[in-house]
Parts: sequence; C-alpha cells; structure tokens
Amino acid sequence: MKKVIIDIYGADCGPELIIKGALKAMEIYDDLGVVFVGNKEVIKSVTGENERIEIIETDDFIRNDENPQVVFSGREQSSLVLSLKNLKNNDDCIGMLSAGSTGALLIGSIRHLGLIKGLRTPALSSDLPLFNGKLVCLVDCGANIACTPHDLVRFALMGNAFKECVYPDIKPKVALLSVGKEEGKGNDLTKEAYNLLKELPINFIGNMEGSDLVTGYADVVVSDGFSGNIILKCAEASGLVAKGIVDEMAKRENRSDDPLIKAISHYINQTFNYNARGGATFLGTEKTVIKMHGCAVEDTVVSCIEQLLRLEKAGFREKIKKAMEK
Amino acid sequence: MKKVIIDIYGADCGPELIIKGALKAMEIYDDLGVVFVGNKEVIKSVTGENERIEIIETDDFIRNDENPQVVFSGREQSSLVLSLKNLKNNDDCIGMLSAGSTGALLIGSIRHLGLIKGLRTPALSSDLPLFNGKLVCLVDCGANIACTPHDLVRFALMGNAFKECVYPDIKPKVALLSVGKEEGKGNDLTKEAYNLLKELPINFIGNMEGSDLVTGYADVVVSDGFSGNIILKCAEASGLVAKGIVDEMAKRENRSDDPLIKAISHYINQTFNYNARGGATFLGTEKTVIKMHGCAVEDTVVSCIEQLLRLEKAGFREKIKKAMEK
Repeated sequence: MKKVIIDIYGADCGPELIIKGALKAMEIYDDLGVVFVGNKEVIKSVTGENERIEIIETDDFIRNDENPQVVFSGREQSSLVLSLKNLKNNDDCIGMLSAGSTGALLIGSIRHLGLIKGLRTPALSSDLPLFNGKLVCLVDCGANIACTPHDLVRFALMGNAFKECVYPDIKPKVALLSVGKEEGKGNDLTKEAYNLLKELPINFIGNMEGSDLVTGYADVVVSDGFSGNIILKCAEASGLVAKGIVDEMAKRENRSDDPLIKAISHYINQTFNYNARGGATFLGTEKTVIKMHGCAVEDTVVSCIEQLLRLEKAGFREKIKKAMEK
Repeated sequence: MKKVIIDIYGADCGPELIIKGALKAMEIYDDLGVVFVGNKEVIKSVTGENERIEIIETDDFIRNDENPQVVFSGREQSSLVLSLKNLKNNDDCIGMLSAGSTGALLIGSIRHLGLIKGLRTPALSSDLPLFNGKLVCLVDCGANIACTPHDLVRFALMGNAFKECVYPDIKPKVALLSVGKEEGKGNDLTKEAYNLLKELPINFIGNMEGSDLVTGYADVVVSDGFSGNIILKCAEASGLVAKGIVDEMAKRENRSDDPLIKAISHYINQTFNYNARGGATFLGTEKTVIKMHGCAVEDTVVSCIEQLLRLEKAGFREKIKKAMEK
C-alpha cells in the first residue's frame, strides 16, 4: 500500500474538507493509504474507523504569518514538521500534502527530507492549465527569489523531468522567460542562463516573452522565483478580471442564466483560476511535497494525491537524480 | 500654434493611416499643427495642401530589427533622428510620436533631447486601462532592464508626476511590484527601493503583487523594466486569451452575433488590448516622446496627440523637474 501524508491544517476551508478530499481519493484508489497529521478527534469525526488510515496526533501548526524559521526551533510538534519527519522515515510514504506556510514547507523540506545531489535548493513548480486544455509547467513560481544562472539550469532540468513524467510521449519544449524572443534579450541573469541552457540535452527553444505563458508556446517555463511569482499571479488575475466582466455584463442584462454565458464563465475560470485548481510541487527534495493552495477544497486534495501517485509511478525522483548527474 | 512632430514610419498599418490619424486630431484641435517626417509624396497624397502642416523630407527610417546604436552613426537622415532633432530645436514643438524602434527612440532621445537633471535614463511608462475604466501607470515597462533602487525611486517620482498631470484632483497611490504585500518581501532591489520609497513625499502604499496590476490596487506601479515588461505582456495576453474563449465558444454555438456576447468580447478587448490602444510615454526627456505601438491605427494617433496636449497643458516637464529636485 502506497501511503500519502496529509497535514490537515492551513487551508481556508478548514481541516474537515481536506480530510474529506483524502477519503474521496481513497475511494478511487484501492491501494492508497493516508496518514493524517492533526487533531485526532477532528480526523476521527470525519473518517470514522478505517484501517487504511493512520493518525499522527498534534494540535500545533505553523501559521502563514509566522517566520518560516520556526521550523528550526521549538516546533517539532507542529503538523508540518511531524509530516515531514514521518515522510522521511517511512519507506511506504511516497509524498505529502500541506496547505501550510510555503516558506516553512520549503526550509522544512530541505532540513528534514534533504535535497537530491547537485541542488542547493528545491524549486517550486506549478502546472498551469492553458485555454487548449494542455498544461504548462512554470518553475520557479516563487520559492527562490534570488537565483543564479546555474539555478535556472537546474530548474530547466527538473521541469523537463517533471514534464517527461507526466507526458512520457512528448519531448517537452523548454523556454526561458525574458523580455524578447531573440538571443541576447534579457537581463544578466537570463543572458548567462541562455548560454548554459542551449548546451543542455533538452529541447530548449530559447527565450519567451510574458505573453507566451498563456498561449502554449512552451511546455516548461524557466524563471527566477521573483518573475515567476509575479507572472503567475498576473495571468491568474487578468483571466479572472475577464471572467468578472463576463459575469457582470451578463448580470446587468439579466442573462446570468444563459447556458452559453455560464459555460464561458466556467471555462475562463477553469483556465485561469490556478489557485482553486491544485497545488505546487517542490522539485528536488528526496521525497515529493505538494503545497496545496490556501483555498484548497476537496477536489484539490484528490488532484494533488493523483499527482503524487502519477509522479511516483513514473519514477520522478530517479528522473530528477539522473537529470542532476548531467 | 502648438506643433506635434510625427515620424510616419514604423507602424504595421503603413504611413497613410498614421497621417490620417493626425489629420483627424487636427479636426478636433483647431490650434494644432503637425510636422510630418517622411516621404513628401506619400504625405501630400493624404493631406493635400494644408497650412497647419509642415513636412521634413526623408525616405530613410530605422527598422525594428536594426541595432538601436545606428542612431549614433550615419543615420542622421532617418525619420527618427530628424524628428528628434527638430523637436529639440523648435520651441513651438511640444512633443513627438513614433511607431519606430523603441531602443533607437530611447537612446536617440537621450542623445538628441537630453535628460532632465537628476536622471541617468528616461523611463518608459504605459497607462493601462482597467476593467473599471480607470488607468494604471506602469513604469518602467521595458526600457530599463537593469535597475538600481534609486532608478525605482525616480520611476516612482516621475510616474507620480505623470499621474498628477492627468488627474490633477487625486493623490496617486504608488505601489512597488513585488512578490508579497508585506514590507520585507521581494528581492534585494525591491527591498532597498522600499526603504527609499517610503521616505518620499508621495502616497506610497507599499508593495503590491502581480495580481494587483489589473485590479486597480494602485494608480502608479513601480517596477524594473524586466518585470514590468513581462507583467505587461502577460496581462495583455491573458485577457486576450479570455476574449478568445468568449469568441470561440460563441462561434461554436452559432451565437457570435448575440449583442451581449459581442459587447462582452469588445469590452474585454478594450480592457486588455494595450497594444492596439495607444502608446508608451518616455518620462524624463527634455521634451515629450510617445512611442506608438507597432500596430497603431488612426485612433492611436489621435489619442497619443491628446496625451501630448494634456501633458503640455499640465506642465508635465516642469512637474518632473520639480520632482527630481526632491
């Protein structure tokens, strides 16, 4: 039985829905076990008795407004640290989910799980939906604010490996986020990274512009975490503003119930509401950690668990290791 | 009579429409004169005889794919350089428009117009429409790829002065583009800039995130040109992808002619199609230069001329000078 560890805290919707989401995934996957980390009564009240469920008890959790460094001192009993430690120490645990503090999860992962050889930091990657139903992997989307050219190389290799796991049949197109497509466009960081990226044994297609994130130009978008974060949030907000225009104009004409309008609004939301959709995967840790968005709901948990199972099946960690040897 | 110089070259639509746009503006503004720079026959064929029009003849222009440095050598007869020189030397010329190479226009402006004291480079600002009809000024949107914290301070002061000229009654809210709203979030550049910005005599409201560009959070968005460029292009493309979803889904249902669908599509386009809308204003040059987008059409010329007249009337250059003294 493959087990997934779930830190029940940190989501806006409260722990109950997170637990329910995990139960839903267990209905789909017969050989899935879940280790919940959190308050026993809360968990039991949702799950009842279930032999595929284990509980690690704690009431402490790290809040988003705390300094992430608290994972180093005195918070050994927090749900986040307990989850990471158990993930590290149990061979049948394939990964964990948490909607807790990204910063604490990042540095906690480095400390408790360790990094794959050749890395100085994990990267945070998001698999963003496109209008055409495909997904584009943006790496890094906010974990690493200051990056070196070699960091971007590692992001490219890991993003490529991630994409190869999810779509074994394609050779992912990897592009570097910059201010113009031509070689030589960009800042010092991207110019140096460009020269390194073109030597890699991946399908590097050169620079891309901010507009190309949402048009399906690349399968993997490589960026420092500062630019990655602002472009991710900007794309999401822009799409949702457009959805707001659809909803508001329809409302004013008393046409909110028009099936076509509803379908359009729903489709734009599905394309751009990254936050509601799922989670971001840490690339480069010795076991896989998925950061669920704060507004995660039941289905978020299901899709994140599916992501963990898919990556495990495809030998994700081995692929990253191999990529790092290059 | 206030005169505006117009480089007729560089727009995808060809010089005729640019000239027609200027004529349209002259119909609206009785005391507006135009100095066209370009081929005399082409200009005359559109304008006929008109005593409010002057022509500076040339057939040479700098292409977008040329190295911008050509403005320094041997291209004295290009429409761009002739426009800048005439702008500099004629007191009754208040500004110029060009759809030519941004890079050539940038370095040509520094060389031929000069910079307001206290500046080491002009900034490129775009006034972007929001869903609510307001405009947000993004500075810098791509002219300055590598910036110092003090550059960002200058961008803030100039963006603030620009906004005060356009909306004399409001105290513009100025925000710094970063990866989180809290003080202390960001990279070294934004962290240092934050400390400087909060000491300025402007309404600095702190950091903003990528999502806040399109939601009306700030009136002036301060950014280095790399981040500014990618976020500008990302917002535009995301909105236009959403518009594409509206159009495509309506088409599939044979409902493209539905007035509400058409109105929604049009409104999203108006909100996000920055490129079709107008131009970007250089802030900090001794006279005002507006870079029209390559896909400028007649109405682009009209709105850019209106922008020049508005800035002139509001004493834009004096406001920037005063801001730089602070």
